[in-house]
Amino acid sequence: MNTLGTSFKITTFGESHGNCIGVVIDGCPAGLRINVDHIQKELDRRRPGQSSVTTSRSETDTLEILSGIFHGYTTGSPICMIIPNKSTDSSFYEENWMYPRPGHADFTAYYKYGGFNDNRGGGMFSGRITASFVIAGAIAKQLLSESLNIKILAYTSSIGGISISPTNLTEIIGEVDQNIVRCPDPVKAKEMINAIEKAKQEGDSLGGAIDCVAINTPIGLGEPLFDTLEGDLAKAIFSIPAVKAIEFGAGTKFSQMKGSEANDQYLVANGIIKTSSNNSGGILGGISNGMPIIIKTTLKPTPSIRKHQNTINIVNKNEKDLSTQGRHDPCIVPRAVPVIEAVVAIVLADHAIKAGFIKHVLEKLE
Amino acid sequence: MNTLGTSFKITTFGESHGNCIGVVIDGCPAGLRINVDHIQKELDRRRPGQSSVTTSRSETDTLEILSGIFHGYTTGSPICMIIPNKSTDSSFYEENWMYPRPGHADFTAYYKYGGFNDNRGGGMFSGRITASFVIAGAIAKQLLSESLNIKILAYTSSIGGISISPTNLTEIIGEVDQNIVRCPDPVKAKEMINAIEKAKQEGDSLGGAIDCVAINTPIGLGEPLFDTLEGDLAKAIFSIPAVKAIEFGAGTKFSQMKGSEANDQYLVANGIIKTSSNNSGGILGGISNGMPIIIKTTLKPTPSIRKHQNTINIVNKNEKDLSTQGRHDPCIVPRAVPVIEAVVAIVLADHAIKAGFIKHVLEKLE
Amino acid sequence: MNTLGTSFKITTFGESHGNCIGVVIDGCPAGLRINVDHIQKELDRRRPGQSSVTTSRSETDTLEILSGIFHGYTTGSPICMIIPNKSTDSSFYEENWMYPRPGHADFTAYYKYGGFNDNRGGGMFSGRITASFVIAGAIAKQLLSESLNIKILAYTSSIGGISISPTNLTEIIGEVDQNIVRCPDPVKAKEMINAIEKAKQEGDSLGGAIDCVAINTPIGLGEPLFDTLEGDLAKAIFSIPAVKAIEFGAGTKFSQMKGSEANDQYLVANGIIKTSSNNSGGILGGISNGMPIIIKTTLKPTPSIRKHQNTINIVNKNEKDLSTQGRHDPCIVPRAVPVIEAVVAIVLADHAIKAGFIKHVLEKLE
Amino acid sequence: MNTLGTSFKITTFGESHGNCIGVVIDGCPAGLRINVDHIQKELDRRRPGQSSVTTSRSETDTLEILSGIFHGYTTGSPICMIIPNKSTDSSFYEENWMYPRPGHADFTAYYKYGGFNDNRGGGMFSGRITASFVIAGAIAKQLLSESLNIKILAYTSSIGGISISPTNLTEIIGEVDQNIVRCPDPVKAKEMINAIEKAKQEGDSLGGAIDCVAINTPIGLGEPLFDTLEGDLAKAIFSIPAVKAIEFGAGTKFSQMKGSEANDQYLVANGIIKTSSNNSGGILGGISNGMPIIIKTTLKPTPSIRKHQNTINIVNKNEKDLSTQGRHDPCIVPRAVPVIEAVVAIVLADHAIKAGFIKHVLEKLE
Repeated sequence: MNTLGTSFKITTFGESHGNCIGVVIDGCPAGLRINVDHIQKELDRRRPGQSSVTTSRSETDTLEILSGIFHGYTTGSPICMIIPNKSTDSSFYEENWMYPRPGHADFTAYYKYGGFNDNRGGGMFSGRITASFVIAGAIAKQLLSESLNIKILAYTSSIGGISISPTNLTEIIGEVDQNIVRCPDPVKAKEMINAIEKAKQEGDSLGGAIDCVAINTPIGLGEPLFDTLEGDLAKAIFSIPAVKAIEFGAGTKFSQMKGSEANDQYLVANGIIKTSSNNSGGILGGISNGMPIIIKTTLKPTPSIRKHQNTINIVNKNEKDLSTQGRHDPCIVPRAVPVIEAVVAIVLADHAIKAGFIKHVLEKLE
Repeated sequence: MNTLGTSFKITTFGESHGNCIGVVIDGCPAGLRINVDHIQKELDRRRPGQSSVTTSRSETDTLEILSGIFHGYTTGSPICMIIPNKSTDSSFYEENWMYPRPGHADFTAYYKYGGFNDNRGGGMFSGRITASFVIAGAIAKQLLSESLNIKILAYTSSIGGISISPTNLTEIIGEVDQNIVRCPDPVKAKEMINAIEKAKQEGDSLGGAIDCVAINTPIGLGEPLFDTLEGDLAKAIFSIPAVKAIEFGAGTKFSQMKGSEANDQYLVANGIIKTSSNNSGGILGGISNGMPIIIKTTLKPTPSIRKHQNTINIVNKNEKDLSTQGRHDPCIVPRAVPVIEAVVAIVLADHAIKAGFIKHVLEKLE
Repeated sequence: MNTLGTSFKITTFGESHGNCIGVVIDGCPAGLRINVDHIQKELDRRRPGQSSVTTSRSETDTLEILSGIFHGYTTGSPICMIIPNKSTDSSFYEENWMYPRPGHADFTAYYKYGGFNDNRGGGMFSGRITASFVIAGAIAKQLLSESLNIKILAYTSSIGGISISPTNLTEIIGEVDQNIVRCPDPVKAKEMINAIEKAKQEGDSLGGAIDCVAINTPIGLGEPLFDTLEGDLAKAIFSIPAVKAIEFGAGTKFSQMKGSEANDQYLVANGIIKTSSNNSGGILGGISNGMPIIIKTTLKPTPSIRKHQNTINIVNKNEKDLSTQGRHDPCIVPRAVPVIEAVVAIVLADHAIKAGFIKHVLEKLE
Repeated sequence: MNTLGTSFKITTFGESHGNCIGVVIDGCPAGLRINVDHIQKELDRRRPGQSSVTTSRSETDTLEILSGIFHGYTTGSPICMIIPNKSTDSSFYEENWMYPRPGHADFTAYYKYGGFNDNRGGGMFSGRITASFVIAGAIAKQLLSESLNIKILAYTSSIGGISISPTNLTEIIGEVDQNIVRCPDPVKAKEMINAIEKAKQEGDSLGGAIDCVAINTPIGLGEPLFDTLEGDLAKAIFSIPAVKAIEFGAGTKFSQMKGSEANDQYLVANGIIKTSSNNSGGILGGISNGMPIIIKTTLKPTPSIRKHQNTINIVNKNEKDLSTQGRHDPCIVPRAVPVIEAVVAIVLADHAIKAGFIKHVLEKLE
């Protein structure tokens, strides 16, 4: 339910308009020096109100540590961290709880929880819950980087039909955070920003896609038959609200390919076995093959729009014309970039520990 | 690892060229009358050698029941079923174990298991393991149909770039098994068959896509935040060899849509709340909303091809030119159709029990 | 690791001398009215400094709710609750971290976590972590009572060799909290108090045993073969520091019995099938049979004693004579009584949901 | 349910009077050379009909390997092994299914599974299912011995009130299988045999206790807070039918001890930190401390007795006088000795892998 992973395990809690958003991280090896500034910086990349294309809800998302860190290091006991909710305005939700917003979880949540769910701002279904992923992901990133030199980079590859050409790692590393849509192609970035501004003015919203690359992954992450790396990455990424499609490597393009085009052939470069192409996205048989892991995620447009839509009164089933007020992102893709990175880091950390690539204690007894 | 699910739980075993393929199904409610013929019929839809577009390996895949059925009903104890392997020819693999076939799991399996893996026919990584999914899926289908009238239908929507237009349920139900590619559009089916025959002659293979629909699903399947219906379906489907992308509802098309186009608006029809479109594919916030569940899966071309490819000797790293012999499907998509249905049934059964829609005992004490 | 249960699932965090002790409760059905006073009252039964036979550490253990409650009801989202640590004095531990205290987890924790563990007051191994069990247990008790009228009662049956005779439910309900050792026999209670006072004066400590009874449990809790009710109760109870033995029903006495004495024979009373005796402690084949569930738990004496003991310097392996200072309970048994009740409640709630006896939503949609 | 463990994971299936008893072992590291004779020898120690004090049901319990072994080594894929059932006589059960046998799971199984359970010979609740533990345990023993030199030895310490004095490892190793009750004290063994013979003649049965020792366990097995070594051992051991109490180290005697007697003090012997006594049974804070692990298990008398007992007709609730016919052990303790060893081995293997003491591949790639 609200716990993900088996070896590096996270449990999330909190609601959009409650006291806080939090996460318990269990299984992080002892002896990892925690860089708290890095966690906060990652939160800052996700936080609302960071630019003109994001929601106007203003939260500092300031990290508080409740447990699990001692003398600056992980101890082997569960790490609990929270961020408080400060800028909440629940008036729209209190007046409109009986009108499920199209595209949101309001309708399904109401039925699943018998109407007892906290609907304010989407409650636990709000994208705000992903701040907890970012916290846990920052720790996972530190662990992966420190232990295995694994780096995870995501970027916006498409918004509102504007897509970038295949890009290279240098561009990504240099450019992603240089613009407010986190797109490594500065020309396309401008087009995307314009498209978002236009949609915002029209009371509408835009969808898009995020590409993510993980480099320096060892050969052997992934546990067949069911706990494949693809399966676990997909399952975790589908926890991010708005995600509706996931592709690895050549992804949906495989349907038009021949085997002779699709197969990545083997060669030896500098004594290391590699593949000449990477259509498989670094995963074969559910197991990492040492090539970069390539994931594409499609996100639907933010469902909250000012444009009028049909809905019904969930109690008496009368029809209702609804314009969603409140504060929303006209396009969630830019803020989802650090979230995708975080989730990928969490899953890779889980698998790296499980497969024995990271020890349970990082440094030595004196 | 080799166990999937929590309430309706399957554990698979067996290798392509070992004694058998088998599955243990745990958590199936007691009191389900098991139709053994239906299970065999589902296996027949998947079995090799069924048509001119499938592998020439000939297996009857005859079901044997080892446990869990008493007087024709499930008992609440684990159900174990197997099919024997009879038509195995391991000569190619014994001679070529040190040459990983491009696109297969040979390379990753070798490293993950230190060279101890049974490589014959791909061992546990062979598509043959999916016969165990079909067995478990047939039981899941019987359970879902009997308890909730849920029906699951998959069909080939694309092969080698030949794609069908959106279709309707009546066509699917009537046509899917009428042709050997399991495509409900008979004209496109012929084109697909021709394309496969051509690829086969060229020593090549084709990829494609399968659409799957589940109808009559209740509102409320799926456990947020991490055990979403999308996430669990995706994770399970990625266990099927060759799957590289998964989409729900409008899937990758969401990246080009506006919120006002993407959102499914609510209306009341015959007293029931529905949506006017189904872009969400029947799932909102990770929870089923009562509309048909729509899943598109992309499968890569069969990696085994006669065409020559580069590989390396995994021990001494010398390069090697390889033509994969053995018996293979020139396109795995048609045989994967019943497998997708089976996996979707398994996940829905798991969630339906977990969410309380199916009782642990189906009928009454006398 | 720090998560227990599958349907009613708790995740704990915090250390004895850190910021707080906390727990996330996941899977509690929506629609349970939460009585916060009852939770606090249960915490008060466990809190340190409550009587002359407990530690002098003084904590109010005041409950704070971080998530999961809305309008006084559970919402279906994770409930997070914490109590702050206020009265911490870590001086002894800072000076003595290299001298593992005999009988404590210091030695094993040091090796398992490479010396990175927070050793102050035992860190996560402190009995203080059981406050989180009491919080979760109070919610489980409310759920079990509200849904199934299940009541769980524990009491001290033995301290320092002073044991009570078999007692009856009326006595237990009336007397348990009437004395500071929570023993329903007032005469024996006085003897126990005297024995504890004497041990305290000698700088020593005492062990004991706690009996626990759960009544009104339905027939059918427990999932064979491995998730038996006995197994899950035992596993959870062994999480309580100091527990070293667990018995169900006649327990260790079974080794001296004949089958004809041990078997509980069936009879019908008021139309209900019961057993004439209850040696099985309400569990047969790992499944509850409707009779009271009877559990006896043995706890070792508090390891912290002022009496001098041999230990070693864990770094240089020199021997050391140690007198454990700090604030400790001369006998932990009285404070463990509400903890045992809590843990039993958590396990029964988990099984009751899993077996379908409690619905996922407790009340109706309007 | 029927799956135990997370890293070394077993899934059992089969019924007493069905086709077979079987087990799937998942997570066993690749590269373990499997000694099939040893597995069969362990099965022979458990098999029925082995001596005058066991049931007269005669089964050879001959091992069949279905998957997971290739060239004599484990491959990393699931190992499935079965033993067929050959000597079944279900006549008593077919005539008496409506009369639950006192002390058996008949009553609870009937209610839990709505009467659909296979009641013949107890079905899945039969002690015969423990043959699957012995198979998996034999592999776990080979793994533990090969990797860490861990040895696990159990023996009968008490039957029908006849108990042995504390014994030493040399005696246990030499004597356990020298007599049919598996008691290392030959004088007491004779008394026990006489007591069993007498009970058998009277149509009655006897309970008893088994002690188990595991040596050479490293420091650090066990995952607090909830996956303690004690908790996981207890949970697994309670899966063995007839087990009603579990103690570690001094066990129930702790209730009468003072801290100064109970604590195991530290000393250094040959450069290694040890404890002067081992009251803790090798486990502190739920984690192994390097001293021998000591477990005492109490088993109730076999419920099946010829002596007349009261039961009821489960359908119409009429009373019934029942004499259990069929073939039963007058005392199950001697045959449970290898089962206890097996279960302890399974749990230790699971924890040893989880804690990183055993690699996922045992030998090297060439």
